[in-house]
Amino acid sequence: MNLSTIRELDPIIHAPIRLAILSVLMASDGATFGFLRDAIETSDGNLSTHLTKLEVAGYVTINKSFVGKKPQTICAITELGRKSYLNYFNRLEEIVQNKGANTPI
Amino acid sequence: MNLSTIRELDPIIHAPIRLAILSVLMASDGATFGFLRDAIETSDGNLSTHLTKLEVAGYVTINKSFVGKKPQTICAITELGRKSYLNYFNRLEEIVQNKGANTPI
Repeated sequence: MNLSTIRELDPIIHAPIRLAILSVLMASDGATFGFLRDAIETSDGNLSTHLTKLEVAGYVTINKSFVGKKPQTICAITELGRKSYLNYFNRLEEIVQNKGANTPI
Repeated sequence: MNLSTIRELDPIIHAPIRLAILSVLMASDGATFGFLRDAIETSDGNLSTHLTKLEVAGYVTINKSFVGKKPQTICAITELGRKSYLNYFNRLEEIVQNKGANTPI
Protein backbone atom coordinates (compact mmCIF):
# COMPACT_ATOMS: atom_id res chain seq x y z
CA MET A 1 0.00 0.00 0.00
CA ASN A 2 1.33 3.36 -1.00
CA LEU A 3 0.52 5.47 2.05
CA SER A 4 1.31 8.74 0.33
CA THR A 5 -1.37 7.96 -2.29
CA ILE A 6 -3.88 7.73 0.54
CA ARG A 7 -2.72 10.96 2.13
CA GLU A 8 -2.82 12.81 -1.19
CA LEU A 9 -6.48 12.05 -1.90
CA ASP A 10 -8.14 15.37 -2.76
CA PRO A 11 -9.95 16.38 0.47
CA ILE A 12 -12.47 18.45 -1.47
CA ILE A 13 -13.65 15.32 -3.31
CA HIS A 14 -13.05 12.74 -0.56
CA ALA A 15 -16.05 13.78 1.58
CA PRO A 16 -18.77 11.26 0.59
CA ILE A 17 -21.47 13.84 -0.03
CA ARG A 18 -19.23 15.88 -2.35
CA LEU A 19 -18.12 12.70 -4.13
CA ALA A 20 -21.80 11.90 -4.66
CA ILE A 21 -22.56 15.41 -5.96
CA LEU A 22 -19.68 15.29 -8.45
CA SER A 23 -20.64 11.76 -9.54
CA VAL A 24 -24.10 13.00 -10.50
CA LEU A 25 -22.72 16.09 -12.23
CA MET A 26 -20.11 14.05 -14.16
CA ALA A 27 -22.98 12.27 -15.90
CA SER A 28 -24.79 15.43 -17.00
CA ASP A 29 -24.37 18.85 -18.57
CA GLY A 30 -25.99 20.37 -15.52
CA ALA A 31 -28.55 19.48 -12.88
CA THR A 32 -31.08 21.53 -10.95
CA PHE A 33 -30.61 22.02 -7.24
CA GLY A 34 -33.78 19.99 -6.59
CA PHE A 35 -32.65 17.11 -8.77
CA LEU A 36 -29.30 16.94 -6.98
CA ARG A 37 -30.91 17.13 -3.54
CA ASP A 38 -33.28 14.27 -4.38
CA ALA A 39 -30.60 12.15 -6.07
CA ILE A 40 -28.29 12.48 -3.09
CA GLU A 41 -31.08 12.31 -0.53
CA THR A 42 -29.92 15.23 1.56
CA SER A 43 -31.36 18.49 2.87
CA ASP A 44 -31.33 21.86 1.07
CA GLY A 45 -28.98 23.27 3.71
CA ASN A 46 -26.49 20.43 3.55
CA LEU A 47 -26.42 20.39 -0.25
CA SER A 48 -25.97 24.15 -0.30
CA THR A 49 -23.02 24.00 2.12
CA HIS A 50 -21.19 21.39 0.06
CA LEU A 51 -21.98 22.98 -3.30
CA THR A 52 -20.42 26.19 -2.01
CA LYS A 53 -17.24 24.32 -1.05
CA LEU A 54 -17.10 22.80 -4.52
CA GLU A 55 -17.73 26.20 -6.11
CA VAL A 56 -14.97 27.85 -4.07
CA ALA A 57 -12.58 25.10 -5.23
CA GLY A 58 -13.58 25.85 -8.82
CA TYR A 59 -15.05 22.37 -9.33
CA VAL A 60 -18.64 23.41 -10.01
CA THR A 61 -20.58 26.42 -11.24
CA ILE A 62 -23.90 27.45 -9.72
CA ASN A 63 -26.18 29.57 -11.90
CA LYS A 64 -29.38 31.08 -10.63
CA SER A 65 -32.04 32.20 -13.09
CA PHE A 66 -35.82 32.37 -13.52
CA VAL A 67 -38.02 30.03 -15.49
CA GLY A 68 -41.08 32.24 -15.81
CA LYS A 69 -41.53 33.49 -12.27
CA LYS A 70 -39.91 30.45 -10.71
CA PRO A 71 -36.30 30.66 -9.56
CA GLN A 72 -34.07 27.87 -10.80
CA THR A 73 -30.53 26.90 -9.77
CA ILE A 74 -28.45 24.95 -12.24
CA CYS A 75 -25.27 23.24 -11.03
CA ALA A 76 -22.61 21.96 -13.41
CA ILE A 77 -19.15 20.50 -13.11
CA THR A 78 -16.26 22.54 -14.53
CA GLU A 79 -13.33 21.27 -16.58
CA LEU A 80 -11.16 21.52 -13.44
CA GLY A 81 -13.81 19.57 -11.56
CA ARG A 82 -13.82 16.83 -14.21
CA LYS A 83 -10.04 16.58 -14.21
CA SER A 84 -9.85 16.51 -10.42
CA TYR A 85 -12.60 13.88 -10.22
CA LEU A 86 -10.83 11.59 -12.71
CA ASN A 87 -7.54 12.17 -10.92
CA TYR A 88 -9.18 11.27 -7.61
CA PHE A 89 -10.54 8.06 -9.10
CA ASN A 90 -7.18 7.11 -10.53
CA ARG A 91 -5.69 7.36 -7.03
CA LEU A 92 -8.61 5.45 -5.56
CA GLU A 93 -8.13 2.72 -8.16
CA GLU A 94 -4.45 2.52 -7.26
CA ILE A 95 -5.32 2.18 -3.56
CA VAL A 96 -7.88 -0.53 -4.25
CA GLN A 97 -5.54 -2.45 -6.55
CA ASN A 98 -2.61 -2.29 -4.15
CA LYS A 99 -4.61 -3.49 -1.19
CA GLY A 100 -3.83 -7.13 -1.78
CA ALA A 101 -0.09 -6.56 -1.89
CA ASN A 102 -0.01 -5.38 1.70
CA THR A 103 -2.45 -7.65 3.46
CA PRO A 104 -1.88 -11.24 4.50
CA ILE A 105 -5.60 -12.07 4.10
CA MET B 1 -22.74 4.98 -9.75
CA ASN B 2 -24.56 3.71 -6.73
CA LEU B 3 -24.83 6.83 -4.59
CA SER B 4 -25.92 4.93 -1.49
CA THR B 5 -22.67 2.92 -1.64
CA ILE B 6 -20.78 6.21 -1.44
CA ARG B 7 -22.88 7.48 1.45
CA GLU B 8 -22.48 4.21 3.36
CA LEU B 9 -18.67 4.28 3.39
CA ASP B 10 -17.59 3.74 7.00
CA PRO B 11 -16.72 7.25 8.27
CA ILE B 12 -14.31 5.84 10.85
CA ILE B 13 -12.17 4.33 8.08
CA HIS B 14 -12.78 6.94 5.35
CA ALA B 15 -10.55 9.62 6.92
CA PRO B 16 -7.23 9.25 5.03
CA ILE B 17 -5.04 9.14 8.14
CA ARG B 18 -7.14 6.39 9.73
CA LEU B 19 -7.20 4.47 6.44
CA ALA B 20 -3.40 4.72 6.40
CA ILE B 21 -3.11 3.55 10.03
CA LEU B 22 -5.35 0.53 9.40
CA SER B 23 -3.50 -0.30 6.17
CA VAL B 24 -0.24 -0.55 8.10
CA LEU B 25 -1.84 -2.58 10.89
CA MET B 26 -3.54 -4.96 8.42
CA ALA B 27 -0.08 -6.06 7.31
CA SER B 28 1.23 -6.83 10.79
CA ASP B 29 0.45 -8.49 14.10
CA GLY B 30 1.12 -5.21 15.84
CA ALA B 31 3.20 -2.07 15.42
CA THR B 32 4.82 0.30 17.88
CA PHE B 33 3.51 3.84 18.16
CA GLY B 34 6.82 5.15 16.79
CA PHE B 35 6.77 2.82 13.81
CA LEU B 36 3.24 3.88 12.92
CA ARG B 37 4.05 7.58 13.34
CA ASP B 38 7.06 7.30 11.02
CA ALA B 39 5.27 5.12 8.45
CA ILE B 40 2.38 7.56 8.23
CA GLU B 41 4.56 10.64 8.55
CA THR B 42 2.45 12.41 11.12
CA SER B 43 2.89 13.93 14.58
CA ASP B 44 2.54 12.12 17.92
CA GLY B 45 -0.53 14.20 18.75
CA ASN B 46 -2.30 13.57 15.48
CA LEU B 47 -1.60 9.83 15.53
CA SER B 48 -2.77 9.64 19.13
CA THR B 49 -6.06 11.41 18.32
CA HIS B 50 -6.87 9.07 15.45
CA LEU B 51 -5.75 5.92 17.27
CA THR B 52 -8.16 6.80 20.06
CA LYS B 53 -11.02 7.13 17.55
CA LEU B 54 -10.14 3.72 16.13
CA GLU B 55 -9.91 2.25 19.63
CA VAL B 56 -13.30 3.66 20.64
CA ALA B 57 -14.79 2.09 17.49
CA GLY B 58 -13.26 -1.24 18.52
CA TYR B 59 -11.05 -1.39 15.42
CA VAL B 60 -7.67 -1.33 17.20
CA THR B 61 -6.19 -2.20 20.56
CA ILE B 62 -3.53 -0.05 22.20
CA ASN B 63 -1.33 -1.75 24.77
CA LYS B 64 1.18 0.11 26.88
CA SER B 65 3.99 -1.76 28.56
CA PHE B 66 7.66 -1.42 29.50
CA VAL B 67 10.67 -2.84 27.69
CA GLY B 68 13.22 -2.58 30.47
CA LYS B 69 12.67 0.96 31.71
CA LYS B 70 11.41 2.20 28.35
CA PRO B 71 7.66 2.59 27.82
CA GLN B 72 6.34 0.96 24.67
CA THR B 73 2.94 1.25 23.01
CA ILE B 74 1.84 -1.55 20.72
CA CYS B 75 -1.09 -0.99 18.38
CA ALA B 76 -2.90 -3.84 16.66
CA ILE B 77 -5.98 -4.21 14.52
CA THR B 78 -8.87 -6.24 15.98
CA GLU B 79 -11.01 -8.83 14.20
CA LEU B 80 -13.77 -6.20 13.92
CA GLY B 81 -11.23 -3.78 12.49
CA ARG B 82 -10.12 -6.32 9.88
CA LYS B 83 -13.70 -7.10 8.87
CA SER B 84 -14.62 -3.42 8.66
CA TYR B 85 -11.49 -2.63 6.64
CA LEU B 86 -12.23 -5.39 4.12
CA ASN B 87 -15.86 -4.31 3.96
CA TYR B 88 -14.76 -0.73 3.32
CA PHE B 89 -12.50 -1.87 0.50
CA ASN B 90 -15.26 -3.94 -1.06
CA ARG B 91 -17.44 -0.83 -1.22
CA LEU B 92 -14.55 1.24 -2.55
CA GLU B 93 -13.94 -1.37 -5.24
CA GLU B 94 -17.60 -1.22 -6.20
CA ILE B 95 -17.44 2.57 -6.46
CA VAL B 96 -14.29 2.45 -8.59
CA GLN B 97 -15.70 -0.25 -10.87
CA ASN B 98 -19.03 1.50 -11.36
CA LYS B 99 -17.46 4.83 -12.21
CA GLY B 100 -17.38 4.14 -15.93
CA ALA B 101 -21.06 3.25 -16.09
CA ASN B 102 -22.11 6.72 -15.04
CA THR B 103 -19.65 8.97 -16.81
CA PRO B 104 -19.75 9.94 -20.47
CA ILE B 105 -15.96 10.30 -20.59
